Amino acid sequence: MSTLILLRHGQSQWNLEDRFTGWVDVDLTPEGEAQARRGGELIKARDLQITCVFTSVLTRAIRTSWLALAAAGQAYVPETKDWRLNERHYGGLTGLNKAETARLHGADQVKVWRRSYDVPPPDLPADSPYDFSGDRRYAGLALPRTESLKTTLDRVKPCWDAEIVPHLGGSETILVAAHGNSLRAIVKLLFDLSAEQIIDVEIPTGNPLVVELAQGLKPTAARYLDEARATALPVV
Amino acid sequence: MSTLILLRHGQSQWNLEDRFTGWVDVDLTPEGEAQARRGGELIKARDLQITCVFTSVLTRAIRTSWLALAAAGQAYVPETKDWRLNERHYGGLTGLNKAETARLHGADQVKVWRRSYDVPPPDLPADSPYDFSGDRRYAGLALPRTESLKTTLDRVKPCWDAEIVPHLGGSETILVAAHGNSLRAIVKLLFDLSAEQIIDVEIPTGNPLVVELAQGLKPTAARYLDEARATALPVV
Repeated sequence: MSTLILLRHGQSQWNLEDRFTGWVDVDLTPEGEAQARRGGELIKARDLQITCVFTSVLTRAIRTSWLALAAAGQAYVPETKDWRLNERHYGGLTGLNKAETARLHGADQVKVWRRSYDVPPPDLPADSPYDFSGDRRYAGLALPRTESLKTTLDRVKPCWDAEIVPHLGGSETILVAAHGNSLRAIVKLLFDLSAEQIIDVEIPTGNPLVVELAQGLKPTAARYLDEARATALPVV
Repeated sequence: MSTLILLRHGQSQWNLEDRFTGWVDVDLTPEGEAQARRGGELIKARDLQITCVFTSVLTRAIRTSWLALAAAGQAYVPETKDWRLNERHYGGLTGLNKAETARLHGADQVKVWRRSYDVPPPDLPADSPYDFSGDRRYAGLALPRTESLKTTLDRVKPCWDAEIVPHLGGSETILVAAHGNSLRAIVKLLFDLSAEQIIDVEIPTGNPLVVELAQGLKPTAARYLDEARATALPVV
């Protein structure tokens, strides 16, 4: 029996401004920092002893893990940072305010881009200020210019299979501190959800989702530690 | 040509109270947090691009690395936490106030324990509240009950040789965020200092010591980034 804790980063500056963020490396707001600390306090209150941590290479997820670990008194736990746990790349929508995008493209089109499983937004323009191909943290990688949830899952899955799953065979407790869509990809894999079922799963920020796993990675229980801020979960 | 940045953790609560700390996991003070951030800002101002980070398993060093990395805009750099970079274990002095210890044992004896190369303080008593042998971060290890600087160096060196040195052959920039005595051990190894020479080396808290290394780990330059808080360095 192993335990997986999925933790979406606390509120970021662009969550607050309601802008499509994706791979832009915006930081947490003070409220987001408080959410991350609160997540760590809940982990401590349940006496969950984390054995290793996985996070993305984006500051808001990394700092969420740090603030949570410090609040849990477990700063010393080994941590791996992997770009494949990054947020979905929002392509040409990156940086745009969501209401503004709805005015430009229509609310229905924006809903398709945000919530469909396999329809990506338009590509990032060639002259975009949000082109990260020169960023050293992605050196040597062929970067996406846009992603759907499906293509996000396609690059999360090799990380999940090769890096995270090998830790889930025994009695370990793994924390994955990441993003709305990379965590939805993991939830889809873990609960074997269809493209339709995953659409309705929305993971709140800074609220640890604790999944108990039996042999063969079968989820036997799932709950949010902050029950007042819980959203609907797949039935286990 | 590679670069090594040695960063002693910012002021801790027991630095402030002038108590022997060793392996006790006390946290940074607000002043210590500010020192760590300032260290990161100096690293950023010099445009030092860190390629990997090593730290101990003690919260004050880990959080110093986190605060410095965040301030430098480099939270995404890979980090390794290794118990062998812990502070010197102060044995039976652990937890005692330094002035009080001088009254009990005499100032000369305390100076010998603090500053001699190879004289350890008395062993940690069997009933000490500072016995960490049951702490999961040290599971499976035979823990010291006291350490001199020499025996500290004896356990730092295998980590230095096997984990850190392999990164210093090329053009990498390594940050080691650790403790007064584990860093003095590294300085002794790096500058090939005698037991007498290392006695006078005192590394200030939160002040990045940048050492440039030529082939064969030969130091060619060494400077503190906060010059106003610099101490004497070995001549290179």
